Amino acid sequence: MLNTLDEVLLMGPGPSSVHPRVYKALAMPTMGHLDAQFLALMDKLKENLKDLMATKNEATIALSATGSSGMEAVLVNLIEENEPMLIITNGFFSERMVDVASRLGAKVDVLEFPWGKHADPGEITKKLKEKPYKLVGMVHAETSTGVLNPIAEIGPLVRSMGAYFIVDAVTSFGGNELRVDDFCIDALYSCSQKCLGCPSGLSPVSFSDRAMEKIAARKKKVPNFYLDMTLLMKYWSGSPRAYHHTAPANMYFALYEALNLILEEGHDRVKARHIETHEYLVQSLEKMGLSMLVEKPWRLPNLNTVLIPDGVEDFAVRKELRATHKIEIGAGLGSLAGKIWRIGIMGHTGRKENVDTLLAALKKILG
Amino acid sequence: MLNTLDEVLLMGPGPSSVHPRVYKALAMPTMGHLDAQFLALMDKLKENLKDLMATKNEATIALSATGSSGMEAVLVNLIEENEPMLIITNGFFSERMVDVASRLGAKVDVLEFPWGKHADPGEITKKLKEKPYKLVGMVHAETSTGVLNPIAEIGPLVRSMGAYFIVDAVTSFGGNELRVDDFCIDALYSCSQKCLGCPSGLSPVSFSDRAMEKIAARKKKVPNFYLDMTLLMKYWSGSPRAYHHTAPANMYFALYEALNLILEEGHDRVKARHIETHEYLVQSLEKMGLSMLVEKPWRLPNLNTVLIPDGVEDFAVRKELRATHKIEIGAGLGSLAGKIWRIGIMGHTGRKENVDTLLAALKKILG
Repeated sequence: MLNTLDEVLLMGPGPSSVHPRVYKALAMPTMGHLDAQFLALMDKLKENLKDLMATKNEATIALSATGSSGMEAVLVNLIEENEPMLIITNGFFSERMVDVASRLGAKVDVLEFPWGKHADPGEITKKLKEKPYKLVGMVHAETSTGVLNPIAEIGPLVRSMGAYFIVDAVTSFGGNELRVDDFCIDALYSCSQKCLGCPSGLSPVSFSDRAMEKIAARKKKVPNFYLDMTLLMKYWSGSPRAYHHTAPANMYFALYEALNLILEEGHDRVKARHIETHEYLVQSLEKMGLSMLVEKPWRLPNLNTVLIPDGVEDFAVRKELRATHKIEIGAGLGSLAGKIWRIGIMGHTGRKENVDTLLAALKKILG
Repeated sequence: MLNTLDEVLLMGPGPSSVHPRVYKALAMPTMGHLDAQFLALMDKLKENLKDLMATKNEATIALSATGSSGMEAVLVNLIEENEPMLIITNGFFSERMVDVASRLGAKVDVLEFPWGKHADPGEITKKLKEKPYKLVGMVHAETSTGVLNPIAEIGPLVRSMGAYFIVDAVTSFGGNELRVDDFCIDALYSCSQKCLGCPSGLSPVSFSDRAMEKIAARKKKVPNFYLDMTLLMKYWSGSPRAYHHTAPANMYFALYEALNLILEEGHDRVKARHIETHEYLVQSLEKMGLSMLVEKPWRLPNLNTVLIPDGVEDFAVRKELRATHKIEIGAGLGSLAGKIWRIGIMGHTGRKENVDTLLAALKKILG
């Protein structure tokens, strides 16, 4: 059955395609989770994550589960029962944050912006004055709509009110400007399989010192042993390192190599490549008569939401792309289902030659 | 840095060494988590897990995180606040279960047996009559002590009292006799990196129909979105399959291939191989004048706890094994630290030639 799987050019909302060096790292001989060589690799992985996130946060690690576990981890560590939390929504993943935080006992208020529009700092300022929120959560890059939210402006507003600022950077980390300390972020989570160009399986997270102090001062233990940051930090940097779980060593090898590739190319160059590829994609789509969902200033370079032209059948086009051309693009989610395609140019996928391949195929199908 | 990592013969408590075919599968081109080919592979993975677990449970899947997340998942789905739970302890991992269940709000009673001894069905019967426990949890194969608990006898006792029987099969699944339905198990979790011979990163779990009914009847949502079995089942077998998280496709490829290897060799043969290798190891160790911690009837074949002879320094021996001979064995945990070594012969590691390699090295070191 494994022999019959296609090699697919992954141009959806993630996973993205993976560089051969990352696959090579993934398949290296596995190692014990307390082996001195492996612990040294974790140290280096942590330093590289801090570097790419532009943070001094000591609590910067990769969780041994996918990006969705990052949302769980940040919320379960930081929320204590009945704490007031504001969640700013403008898409599928910020709405999911409402569900996750509510399950964990937060008293959640929602400040809602329309899907496809950005979160407006002026409105947020007003809302923050209504109540002394303990936590404020939002999504940096909304994978469901292709909007990049202005978190660099919002972070300092939240910090000035004394709340903890929680950011979903699942789709932005690696590909977009994201400076954890400068943006006043207290807790952030991401994933391995989008702009970092590694397969899915890990979730990089970072907690500020004040966030870690909040966790240390909890009245009750974190109601999630697997994702308890105090225990995870004893494994990542305790002296001696304390066993917590059996780290998925091969996924760590792969992430380590994926970060190496970004550092070798230069992080600024990688971010610029995402923007250049995005501009090339949009120009090419517009030449074909297609148009974008999101207004220009708020477009997320790495995940492009294209309006499906009238009379074109969404599923038939995606099916043909996948079956004949071995290319995956994403469908719309929720109220955008059937109305948009989501074209990812993240990580290793984010190159002009891949845009050319996709557009040649799309032209054949659309005629 | 990756180039400087050693290839280690893994004879500790897990991870175990991995067959080349599993590495090859791990490094296959990654795939979208909703790709029809990938969903078909998940179907087959589920069928193979059911086959190897000897269960008809529809809710038999692999969680996208390590074995420790399996303990979390089983407990967070099944526990509702203040429910009385009995946990039978005789080692590190059953004691951990007490912590995890308590964090989740269960009212936990503990029936304690000494480390290195088995859980006694007679004592358990008495304890079960004291209180109408809703849940009973225990560990099948205690990795910390090398004891195999008689769960085949205990399961029917628990079922007859109407409680839900929760079993940690992290170290037993794949290598020991484990018949989920016959043993009256309501929820079980395991890992990928021990007797299944895959790298760490996934946790096979299985829930009985009555366990899934208990979850469906919960008063509050499961306070863990990432591990919510109702949502996971919509992804694993919904119609249409509903997105929940981005499955770590490459880990699934590897687990799929690891299960194929077991099915090709024959599951009974694999279990017999673990016993044969264990007997060969014990005989060889005894010839060297070493002796075992656990009495013969309760020895766990796949994880062997050897008493460290007087005058031999634990750490120095393990360090020399790893540095000079590139072999990992495990240290003792908790009260057994410095007193025992833990020698794993699990999965692909469980072969006589590996025992020979280890013993030749041990003889050189011990002189």
